[in-house]
Amino acid sequence: MAIRMAVIGAGRIGQIHATNAARNGGVTLAGVADAIPEPAAKLAAQLGTKVLSVEQILADRTIDAVLIGSSTDTHADLIMRAAAAGKHIFCEKPVDLDLNRARDCEKAVRVAGKACLIGFQRRFDPTFSALKARIEKGEIGELEALSVISRDPGAPPVAYLQRSGGIFKDMLIHDFDIFRWIFGEEAETVYATASALTDPNIASVANDADTTAVVIRTVTGKLAQIHTSRRAAYGYDQRFEVLGAKGMLQAGNHRPTEVVASGPDVVSIDKPEDFFLQRYERAYRNELDHFIAVLGGHETLRVSIEDGVKALELADAATTSWRESRIVRLH
Amino acid sequence: MAIRMAVIGAGRIGQIHATNAARNGGVTLAGVADAIPEPAAKLAAQLGTKVLSVEQILADRTIDAVLIGSSTDTHADLIMRAAAAGKHIFCEKPVDLDLNRARDCEKAVRVAGKACLIGFQRRFDPTFSALKARIEKGEIGELEALSVISRDPGAPPVAYLQRSGGIFKDMLIHDFDIFRWIFGEEAETVYATASALTDPNIASVANDADTTAVVIRTVTGKLAQIHTSRRAAYGYDQRFEVLGAKGMLQAGNHRPTEVVASGPDVVSIDKPEDFFLQRYERAYRNELDHFIAVLGGHETLRVSIEDGVKALELADAATTSWRESRIVRLH
Amino acid sequence: MAIRMAVIGAGRIGQIHATNAARNGGVTLAGVADAIPEPAAKLAAQLGTKVLSVEQILADRTIDAVLIGSSTDTHADLIMRAAAAGKHIFCEKPVDLDLNRARDCEKAVRVAGKACLIGFQRRFDPTFSALKARIEKGEIGELEALSVISRDPGAPPVAYLQRSGGIFKDMLIHDFDIFRWIFGEEAETVYATASALTDPNIASVANDADTTAVVIRTVTGKLAQIHTSRRAAYGYDQRFEVLGAKGMLQAGNHRPTEVVASGPDVVSIDKPEDFFLQRYERAYRNELDHFIAVLGGHETLRVSIEDGVKALELADAATTSWRESRIVRLH
Amino acid sequence: MAIRMAVIGAGRIGQIHATNAARNGGVTLAGVADAIPEPAAKLAAQLGTKVLSVEQILADRTIDAVLIGSSTDTHADLIMRAAAAGKHIFCEKPVDLDLNRARDCEKAVRVAGKACLIGFQRRFDPTFSALKARIEKGEIGELEALSVISRDPGAPPVAYLQRSGGIFKDMLIHDFDIFRWIFGEEAETVYATASALTDPNIASVANDADTTAVVIRTVTGKLAQIHTSRRAAYGYDQRFEVLGAKGMLQAGNHRPTEVVASGPDVVSIDKPEDFFLQRYERAYRNELDHFIAVLGGHETLRVSIEDGVKALELADAATTSWRESRIVRLH
Repeated sequence: MAIRMAVIGAGRIGQIHATNAARNGGVTLAGVADAIPEPAAKLAAQLGTKVLSVEQILADRTIDAVLIGSSTDTHADLIMRAAAAGKHIFCEKPVDLDLNRARDCEKAVRVAGKACLIGFQRRFDPTFSALKARIEKGEIGELEALSVISRDPGAPPVAYLQRSGGIFKDMLIHDFDIFRWIFGEEAETVYATASALTDPNIASVANDADTTAVVIRTVTGKLAQIHTSRRAAYGYDQRFEVLGAKGMLQAGNHRPTEVVASGPDVVSIDKPEDFFLQRYERAYRNELDHFIAVLGGHETLRVSIEDGVKALELADAATTSWRESRIVRLH
Repeated sequence: MAIRMAVIGAGRIGQIHATNAARNGGVTLAGVADAIPEPAAKLAAQLGTKVLSVEQILADRTIDAVLIGSSTDTHADLIMRAAAAGKHIFCEKPVDLDLNRARDCEKAVRVAGKACLIGFQRRFDPTFSALKARIEKGEIGELEALSVISRDPGAPPVAYLQRSGGIFKDMLIHDFDIFRWIFGEEAETVYATASALTDPNIASVANDADTTAVVIRTVTGKLAQIHTSRRAAYGYDQRFEVLGAKGMLQAGNHRPTEVVASGPDVVSIDKPEDFFLQRYERAYRNELDHFIAVLGGHETLRVSIEDGVKALELADAATTSWRESRIVRLH
Repeated sequence: MAIRMAVIGAGRIGQIHATNAARNGGVTLAGVADAIPEPAAKLAAQLGTKVLSVEQILADRTIDAVLIGSSTDTHADLIMRAAAAGKHIFCEKPVDLDLNRARDCEKAVRVAGKACLIGFQRRFDPTFSALKARIEKGEIGELEALSVISRDPGAPPVAYLQRSGGIFKDMLIHDFDIFRWIFGEEAETVYATASALTDPNIASVANDADTTAVVIRTVTGKLAQIHTSRRAAYGYDQRFEVLGAKGMLQAGNHRPTEVVASGPDVVSIDKPEDFFLQRYERAYRNELDHFIAVLGGHETLRVSIEDGVKALELADAATTSWRESRIVRLH
Repeated sequence: MAIRMAVIGAGRIGQIHATNAARNGGVTLAGVADAIPEPAAKLAAQLGTKVLSVEQILADRTIDAVLIGSSTDTHADLIMRAAAAGKHIFCEKPVDLDLNRARDCEKAVRVAGKACLIGFQRRFDPTFSALKARIEKGEIGELEALSVISRDPGAPPVAYLQRSGGIFKDMLIHDFDIFRWIFGEEAETVYATASALTDPNIASVANDADTTAVVIRTVTGKLAQIHTSRRAAYGYDQRFEVLGAKGMLQAGNHRPTEVVASGPDVVSIDKPEDFFLQRYERAYRNELDHFIAVLGGHETLRVSIEDGVKALELADAATTSWRESRIVRLH
């Protein structure tokens, strides 16, 4: 029997999830909600569903699951209300910018006993998930070191950055999750430093940074390095590599085509996929498929609200390390 | 307004087209037909449409277009009946194994004045079509040479081969179309040779070959080489490269993931996508989108029944060249 | 004890061989000869050896070996005289442009009973020789198909082409040797066609071509395709690939550096090494090392004058096939 | 006129430099010295030179330059004596394990006013130096971030490690030089952590580590990350990448051949060159050529004893950061 699901948030990411839900044979899209009427109406029309209010969604006992794709500041409240209403939850990252509030959500979900998937979609990317599966099969033996490079094509507006919680919560939250997922181990110490190199306003107006370097040491001495930048002239760069006792696995960028051009100056290939909507198109699909498979009892939840909280702990620690110029000890 | 389309053939390729049609916002899937009831019923159920007979489809004046994905021996008859019924046609390759019959279809379509797209889906592959677009922009100047390498993961059963029309019609038909599409020019001479190297029964029982080498020279002296094999131990290999006065463009294989593994012996990447259903998944989608865009007046038909006939002429010429050990002159 | 060797020809290729000989611990460079005094004197001075005449070299019984790097029209005469003088011979390709004269050389060498290496240096390239060794270890099983792509950065002057013997003898002689070396089997039929696409004078003045397509079928049905061009805008392109029952091996281009540049438009790598002097620098060194090892009794001659004659037979057959528009049968 | 040069140290690295010197047309190899007679005699015989004592070398006023390739603990003493004797100096890294002693050497060299090249051979690698030249031409604009990955194929014996000065001085000294060379800027802070993951004796017996993660922040906020490991199952891994405002440049590994193998499981290429002798073969040659060109007045010294001292300062800082678990501030 199909899962009845409603989508809250009809913006960019809500549209993706709603469209994927509409195409998933195991889902009946019960409706979409948004604080602003137009995008909700447009999306509902496109997908042949109706506009609902959040209240209607939570009150409708025939709706099994809610997908929360609204703005970050609404996540915690919606998670708690949805948990109280007995809904399964698929919520975009982050749980909240405030760690304590995120922990409250974690508790609420635990009490409700329903599934709650936090949208770390990278775990569902074909390349990343294949790499993880190969680690689990023991292909490279005991893990030793991880290096993550994560760059956006350009920085968001300074006004956005001012409300973003800072680069470690807003951008590196994904990379911290990659660290935890790949190593399957918790951090002992975190060191982070950062600079504003692409636009001085990022420092002076937003009090934020655009370029970071982080080192995480785990309780068993494994070492992870994360480097991010808000701007790469060549586009969206999403790579990591894992060294183990028996070898190395690298996750490379995806490209739109496999054309190779040999000209008078160079031999060239395509730049990486433009941005996260393109790069993770399949990841978003797989992620929704997984959520539905979990609700159907066919798969076990692969990324939980606890993962969302733990990534936030690392983001908090990194922020502190940077701001206070000190190594932060976690465990 | 949505195009009303029916799909004839509920086998492997029919399923793909019907599913793509069901997901295309501009299409209403009017029904599916198949000589065998079960697959038709199953597909119709999956896609929320109904089972129709060919007769019902052709008689229903609300149906704008038919997609012919049934077995090769039915193509010509269905094209002619559909043309007579005033339907737009999307027909899988080849038009027919018999060149004269294919030409009759071409005439019937011309008389009917409706769109008829022949399913050379490779033209719609992201890599191949990007390469073609770059040629048209003049990136490599005047074209000089083309080299196509096309290998299947394994030969079909000998029983299939016996009814296939031979490797040049069954397998290279796609490569002949690539030749015409890339060069935009007709063949002057064709030389072909072939061997049965993977299984002696292919020669002795099916009187066919599994490995080919073809050279086509165009009227302006451009040179094309095609090599195919029915079996590559490493999977499905689909590449070509074009030399022009100003450079070279190569179309490489697509791979499932971008994982790179460095181990004690080698550094390795994934094999190419398994077979045509995976490799050309997006091509099939784009192809259907194009057909619908043509019917909607938004695009001009990019591959016509004439293209189907011309590719067959080349396949006939290559077969003759091989069988009679001679160079065949076409124009 | 060191081999005493003299070098005939102080041009581009003679300089390379003489320099490699001077650096080879197993060689004493006895002298260099050239029809023109200046280059001989300059080379001798550079390498700390003396200028000799051909007569002096052949008469000097302390000289064990001669390296013939003079112009093609002198090869046959020098081989026969050197053989008569009891010298070991290292002669640049081709043996001669005339097949009968080349066969005479072969006989003279056989009678003399000395080593005679013909300079198919590609066999000594690290990539090509590693590939060949892997074939011999059975890595890809029984061979089925070979595809050679060989392109020069630009055509030589038309005046040179007029005396070159034509593209099949002058340029493809190397590719024909690659075919024989890789397959270890003789040709049954040869088909060749060619065009002059880069410069009309190549056809009208030199009666030659600049772009070729060749198919060779062996006695056991293996298929080889060769494509060459005198001009590639992106430089010197030297690749081949071999399909076997168990897999494929490809030999790719070498590049000056391993820098990868990601910019606003593309991701790029270096073009291939400029031309044969750069691309085959190591091959030339290995080739000379091999010749010295053969003379020292440490290795068995890996490329003989018979190989030189057989490659010429194929070049003759291809020329005939092209000029007479027919398939040429060899065995 | 040729530079008269003597080589001190006839071990692995001394042999390389002496052989390169013997092949360099601008050098006369005056002799070789070694504390142990046999290797010196053998090397001298191979290269046609004689065995000298260090005293003889320093006393011989016809000798222009000394190349110091003896063990690390002899470097400082030999530099100071050679400087006092008015010789030009080419000394292998490190200057010394003790920073103050290294600074004394720097002063001695400054007073002597002779050239002193410290053997950071990576700067002379074709890939690395091409990348640096492209940075200097402004290809990627203002630099922002550097990521260095440097892994050895296996750890040296624990007995060696006990006298090595620790991983930061023994192994990362090269990477610290890369940092300084690429950024052209000094460090403000250094953070380093390390683990012994490949062999517990490295920690318990040698009190050292085998896996490191370092972050350096420059005075202008540029960020560098260095990761090293003493063991990579797949061999010697030498890569770095630089992000700038206009793009990224990556230096990839070199491989022995360009063979690509497609088999039933994967598509594979060669592992990187075995170890530093192979990987940096050309770098060592270029480095010596540069030294000779400097002495001949044709080039300006590209890596000085000051560079050797500065790299050591970073190694000291990293060691302190790791041992004391704190961020070390340098400027």
